[in-house]
Amino acid sequence: MDFDYSPRTQALRARLQRFMEDHIYPHEPTYHAELAAHTAAGKRWTPLPLIDQLKEKARAEGLWNLFLPRDSAEIAGVNGTDWGGAGLTNQEYAPLAEIMGRVPWASEVFNCSAPDTGNMETIARYGSAEHRAQWLRPLLEGKIRSAFAMTEPDVASSDATNIATRIERARGQTGENYLINGRKWWTSGAGDPRCAIYIVMGKTDPEAARHSQQSMVLVPANTPGITVMRALTVMGYDDAPHGHMEVDFKDVRVPASNILLGEGRGFEIAQGRLGPGRIHHCMRLIGQAERALEYMCRRASTRVAFGKPVAAQTVTQERIAEARCQIDMARLLTLKAAWMMDTVGNKVAQTEIAMIKVVAPSMACQVIDWAMQVHGGGGLSQDFPLAYSWANARTLRFADGPDEVHRNAIAKWELGKYAPVTKAVEPPVTRGC
Amino acid sequence: MDFDYSPRTQALRARLQRFMEDHIYPHEPTYHAELAAHTAAGKRWTPLPLIDQLKEKARAEGLWNLFLPRDSAEIAGVNGTDWGGAGLTNQEYAPLAEIMGRVPWASEVFNCSAPDTGNMETIARYGSAEHRAQWLRPLLEGKIRSAFAMTEPDVASSDATNIATRIERARGQTGENYLINGRKWWTSGAGDPRCAIYIVMGKTDPEAARHSQQSMVLVPANTPGITVMRALTVMGYDDAPHGHMEVDFKDVRVPASNILLGEGRGFEIAQGRLGPGRIHHCMRLIGQAERALEYMCRRASTRVAFGKPVAAQTVTQERIAEARCQIDMARLLTLKAAWMMDTVGNKVAQTEIAMIKVVAPSMACQVIDWAMQVHGGGGLSQDFPLAYSWANARTLRFADGPDEVHRNAIAKWELGKYAPVTKAVEPPVTRGC
Amino acid sequence: MDFDYSPRTQALRARLQRFMEDHIYPHEPTYHAELAAHTAAGKRWTPLPLIDQLKEKARAEGLWNLFLPRDSAEIAGVNGTDWGGAGLTNQEYAPLAEIMGRVPWASEVFNCSAPDTGNMETIARYGSAEHRAQWLRPLLEGKIRSAFAMTEPDVASSDATNIATRIERARGQTGENYLINGRKWWTSGAGDPRCAIYIVMGKTDPEAARHSQQSMVLVPANTPGITVMRALTVMGYDDAPHGHMEVDFKDVRVPASNILLGEGRGFEIAQGRLGPGRIHHCMRLIGQAERALEYMCRRASTRVAFGKPVAAQTVTQERIAEARCQIDMARLLTLKAAWMMDTVGNKVAQTEIAMIKVVAPSMACQVIDWAMQVHGGGGLSQDFPLAYSWANARTLRFADGPDEVHRNAIAKWELGKYAPVTKAVEPPVTRGC
Amino acid sequence: MDFDYSPRTQALRARLQRFMEDHIYPHEPTYHAELAAHTAAGKRWTPLPLIDQLKEKARAEGLWNLFLPRDSAEIAGVNGTDWGGAGLTNQEYAPLAEIMGRVPWASEVFNCSAPDTGNMETIARYGSAEHRAQWLRPLLEGKIRSAFAMTEPDVASSDATNIATRIERARGQTGENYLINGRKWWTSGAGDPRCAIYIVMGKTDPEAARHSQQSMVLVPANTPGITVMRALTVMGYDDAPHGHMEVDFKDVRVPASNILLGEGRGFEIAQGRLGPGRIHHCMRLIGQAERALEYMCRRASTRVAFGKPVAAQTVTQERIAEARCQIDMARLLTLKAAWMMDTVGNKVAQTEIAMIKVVAPSMACQVIDWAMQVHGGGGLSQDFPLAYSWANARTLRFADGPDEVHRNAIAKWELGKYAPVTKAVEPPVTRGC
Repeated sequence: MDFDYSPRTQALRARLQRFMEDHIYPHEPTYHAELAAHTAAGKRWTPLPLIDQLKEKARAEGLWNLFLPRDSAEIAGVNGTDWGGAGLTNQEYAPLAEIMGRVPWASEVFNCSAPDTGNMETIARYGSAEHRAQWLRPLLEGKIRSAFAMTEPDVASSDATNIATRIERARGQTGENYLINGRKWWTSGAGDPRCAIYIVMGKTDPEAARHSQQSMVLVPANTPGITVMRALTVMGYDDAPHGHMEVDFKDVRVPASNILLGEGRGFEIAQGRLGPGRIHHCMRLIGQAERALEYMCRRASTRVAFGKPVAAQTVTQERIAEARCQIDMARLLTLKAAWMMDTVGNKVAQTEIAMIKVVAPSMACQVIDWAMQVHGGGGLSQDFPLAYSWANARTLRFADGPDEVHRNAIAKWELGKYAPVTKAVEPPVTRGC
Repeated sequence: MDFDYSPRTQALRARLQRFMEDHIYPHEPTYHAELAAHTAAGKRWTPLPLIDQLKEKARAEGLWNLFLPRDSAEIAGVNGTDWGGAGLTNQEYAPLAEIMGRVPWASEVFNCSAPDTGNMETIARYGSAEHRAQWLRPLLEGKIRSAFAMTEPDVASSDATNIATRIERARGQTGENYLINGRKWWTSGAGDPRCAIYIVMGKTDPEAARHSQQSMVLVPANTPGITVMRALTVMGYDDAPHGHMEVDFKDVRVPASNILLGEGRGFEIAQGRLGPGRIHHCMRLIGQAERALEYMCRRASTRVAFGKPVAAQTVTQERIAEARCQIDMARLLTLKAAWMMDTVGNKVAQTEIAMIKVVAPSMACQVIDWAMQVHGGGGLSQDFPLAYSWANARTLRFADGPDEVHRNAIAKWELGKYAPVTKAVEPPVTRGC
Repeated sequence: MDFDYSPRTQALRARLQRFMEDHIYPHEPTYHAELAAHTAAGKRWTPLPLIDQLKEKARAEGLWNLFLPRDSAEIAGVNGTDWGGAGLTNQEYAPLAEIMGRVPWASEVFNCSAPDTGNMETIARYGSAEHRAQWLRPLLEGKIRSAFAMTEPDVASSDATNIATRIERARGQTGENYLINGRKWWTSGAGDPRCAIYIVMGKTDPEAARHSQQSMVLVPANTPGITVMRALTVMGYDDAPHGHMEVDFKDVRVPASNILLGEGRGFEIAQGRLGPGRIHHCMRLIGQAERALEYMCRRASTRVAFGKPVAAQTVTQERIAEARCQIDMARLLTLKAAWMMDTVGNKVAQTEIAMIKVVAPSMACQVIDWAMQVHGGGGLSQDFPLAYSWANARTLRFADGPDEVHRNAIAKWELGKYAPVTKAVEPPVTRGC
Repeated sequence: MDFDYSPRTQALRARLQRFMEDHIYPHEPTYHAELAAHTAAGKRWTPLPLIDQLKEKARAEGLWNLFLPRDSAEIAGVNGTDWGGAGLTNQEYAPLAEIMGRVPWASEVFNCSAPDTGNMETIARYGSAEHRAQWLRPLLEGKIRSAFAMTEPDVASSDATNIATRIERARGQTGENYLINGRKWWTSGAGDPRCAIYIVMGKTDPEAARHSQQSMVLVPANTPGITVMRALTVMGYDDAPHGHMEVDFKDVRVPASNILLGEGRGFEIAQGRLGPGRIHHCMRLIGQAERALEYMCRRASTRVAFGKPVAAQTVTQERIAEARCQIDMARLLTLKAAWMMDTVGNKVAQTEIAMIKVVAPSMACQVIDWAMQVHGGGGLSQDFPLAYSWANARTLRFADGPDEVHRNAIAKWELGKYAPVTKAVEPPVTRGC
């Protein structure tokens, strides 16, 4: 057992931290100023110049596509290119994602932001050579962006059999193609004008077995029949220029070759896609929580009420101590999940992944909420990153499945240890401490 | 002991509920549509026509100024007028405030919204005949609005000795006056163009005894030297057209007669003002929580996941049951506090008021959060009133003093029961069950 | 609405409080000394002389059988006798039960302790004249004690259809009788040698409708075939000389006339019996919590660590304040439930009863746990009443049905408000605030 | 980073698990039967034959003194002996302590039970050769037992400056010696007749600097003036034959050579002693929690209520999942703390040690409480190990300092990161992830 980061990770952490200090933290006001200026000029849904400038810098420093695992890079044939990432394991990337997560918009600077990361990995692993040439390359170079259209407004989408969007095979004038009809929402990133490609989940065969009904297709954003209806807000935030959009697909036609992996493989891709995505989310949440704790400590140390600093009150100290404990435990569990993915594979690691998916967002909400409380009214306002951070953490108690669904999965795995052997339940696998 | 509402309260509740059903709930979309239209037209900070129409209706039906207690109405000489309220006790008004609280913007329709209610009561009780003629009458008629400028960005304002705004007596060309300098924020309502009058708290004598340093003055909104700097957001909401504003006071001059009650009486007024205000806030929070529970039940009953309605899951049932228990207990405690104010006065009731101030916002946050979770992503969006409602409830864990300050006050009162008799601690008073 | 106790209740509270101060609190050490002496003398399961002496005093002062409602006393024909109680309503008795609950063994002194109270009420309401003459009279006079045999070790007894004990009608040499076979546990009071009568729940017809399978019979404790197997411990406490016993019924025969109300009415009696019993339990828990809070305040005020009293730490103050809030809210809810029982009947009040059953034990556990923590190691020891009190409160999260079952019932009632009208769900009834 | 146990640890875990399955679990009823027989025979405070038999077996299998670190064994000169332990690091021993912790009395079988482990380590590191010869050797061989007398009934002992016991240097007839006067309680193990030696903490110089007032001396249990007053109960358990005793020291005289390390070094020894002890406690708590979770799963799977197993209720699943998450996180944090002790020393690791001291007992209490709830009344009784286990876990929220004291220490360390550099606060050290 060894709790130290590898020398390579330590070096990358140091470089990334320096980049944050030199280029990200000092530009937090710039970010908001540019967005405000865009809004005032009636172009709220426009990429910010700041991000483009910083992307160039980050790429030049090799802090680019760090999320992409070596094996995916190999499959995609981008190993060794300067856009192919550093070939890190999940365990090596995780502490870097934490650092990026300290500032909500920072990941994009390193081409490491959701949903692009998950989409790139999906195309890398499940796309054809053509898909990779057309969509993966520009995504890896940060020239376009992408969206993932899965959740639907009318059904509980955590149950994949509820998905109502239809992807029907049809013979059109241009040969074999798929006809897509349905309504999606929470299609994050679809508000960005650079968003060029959607991965759309729908049902090709509603009569098939439970987990073989769904398929995924690549749908260019400019395909006729797609309408971006509106931006959803998250606790009052619209997340412009990125956005969480409601999107209508009406008789949208794409060539049959746009399918990923094959008909009926959509659920399988979703499962494969979500593991690393959850690790990334959780590590970013840990970064958010660390930053909130830093704000809490600084504020409590300097704000005086009733004759002494708020930090001198044991009620404050109690929360700071609990925050430190909760953060450290969540980090350890997330790193262990990453290590399991690296050593025994995403499938075996799925319970650990479910566990961090349950633990990290609630922990972050709690820590940030304590930090807000120490800030008084200011904590809820635009003057500190806390309120936005809370809203972001709160969404992750739904995104990729609500807590309740993950808890049930964990419990079934646990109960399976004591099930009568006659039941055809796969015996749970454990690794490590 | 009798837990029934009086016949008079029951009749008023029935009338108010009918008004909500006829005129408020059906117009919730209208409200958002008008605000969106205003925003698109570049006039976000403009009162909505809908509200004005509904105010007329409410006044016509006698559902107007219900918040104003009989004794305040008498002092103000508006008893018997059609704008003088119905002469209700706190206990009678409380359940009406709960009903209004179910829709965030509804209270204004009945001229019962903060901070106007507190300001009207303050002027009624502590203002001169001139103050009442000039400001109270138009406020009671709903023709102007008002703001309360107390909290400051640079200090922990829950400790009144921290207040830095200066109100200095000066002799000007126009006679005796006060010169005001300072910075306020969370001045709610100051974004509304109809806001005509501020009550400003500041220090007239920083060297006086701890609670005699502060005074309150009436400051017309158009007095030179006042600059509304910006709107603060609460989570991502700006609460337009009402707004929570940061306001700068630079060499603002008002006649000496604008002082309320006298120099050094500011803390005393604040204490007197806050009791009823807290009851109102808490009852509205209970209304918000009730509505969230209604949303939770309806959604859980109709949303199907993994083969059955979400309401059939015991994990959902557990939360619904806890919500029902927590809401009912908070309501009972709030009504008891109101009853104590009516029977033994605001001063003796202060511990009970502190208790509900601690209990109700946290309860509402928890119930609304559960409701959001049942709604999936939608729960955080503009499609349901839950996210905004949570943001509103969350602010009330700071507004009028953070939870921590109130808890300490309650604890000191409790510990005082066992203090050695030699200590000059006032013995705690209890009433009722 | 009126939160004051009636003058009559206030007078009784004053008399009871004086009795506690004069006779109960000063004898807490006596109680433990007598029990220790008995134990040393090998007679642990023997009634304590102290209790008998105090019972005489209490009866002489008219603080006797206060639990028995006027209508039950009338049915039983004991109205006006000096053992017939004071004819109080639930609402009037509740605050008295709270005071008695402050010392775990005090209720017996006033002939108001479980399970005798429930058994007396059951015999009063559902027993025949013969039952009342034989068993109720000596119980009301405090000459014998009784036990209630319902829970079984082998099944989840909160689901009454699980009950496995059989009560079979048979023709014996002595005429028509019932043959009882089964195993019960948590038969509280069966350890006391004065326990003369059991009320036993079992199935007379396992094939009948779900809630008509069960019956209740009176079984004299000395009937052949009854074996008291052992005392169960509660967190290490055996509750001698009262005890929670496991009892075996093997071919136990009683006359057919010993049935209460009739065959198949057992579930109905259980429901009727449990309402008042739960109110009593909850009020006693509130008394326990109040006393724990008193211990917490006294200890925190006098114990010095790191240079100041523990009470000066805001972390202590926070808990004291929360305890005060939680206790007061639980009391209000319990009193409201009692008031509903009095005004609309136990059946309509069942949701409120379920609510307090969920709320009060958890509240008490929390408050007592905080109090223990302030006492350091001593808090868990025999030197303070806290540890025993916690154990007692903890059992009440199971007794009369676990929290989970009650929460589900509350939730179903709440969800029923929004059910489609076609469903034959009884519309929920609400009363009061 | 590597989350796998080392091959050596894995091998020891496998051997230990086999021993538990072969010799411990099957004898749990034996243990209780022997204790019951002793009690019936009036010799409750007598060692159990079972333990002696199993100790022989464990020692024969080399599962003996595993707790003793290699460096301590070296200092003590017992390296290589068959009673010198296996020379494990904290990290290697921790997972073994977890397994032993699954059964409350199991650690003694392996000569790894508190307070002997701490006392042995203390004598090994801080004792003279004579101390080691006289007391350490028989302790390591399991021939005698020992006690640690630190906590006092009259003061908040978590603040070492409160300690009132006096250790005064005096010249007696037998040469230089120390005279000890004071009252201790929670002297665990002093009830065992084999307890031969006490380590007593007291003040040699009440006027010295805050942390130099205290000293520790070795006091043979049979020294005149020592009176074991009584056994304290924990909840209702007396922990016979081990016991938590109140002990009076009246003019107790020991040779001056019995002092450990020197006058004024008591606080320093206490600090050094507590680190490993806390790790052991926490790992045993994790073992307890694991076993409770196993009981919870088995019971929930087999107990049927309202037509389905309790395990099918999502409310049960939610708790099982949370238990799994909380246990795994607490284990990771504890192992990290152990790893830090091994790599950077106990002093640097003190914040991590404080963190697990806060986290593990509360986690265990929560998990065990959930498990009790699933067991209904049985969960609180002697029929399952849960109630005793909860009592044990609850004491560890006080033992070695209450949660509150540890949380304050963690918070001060965290706040220190942001303190102005001028402050002479030692900069916090962090290692690992």
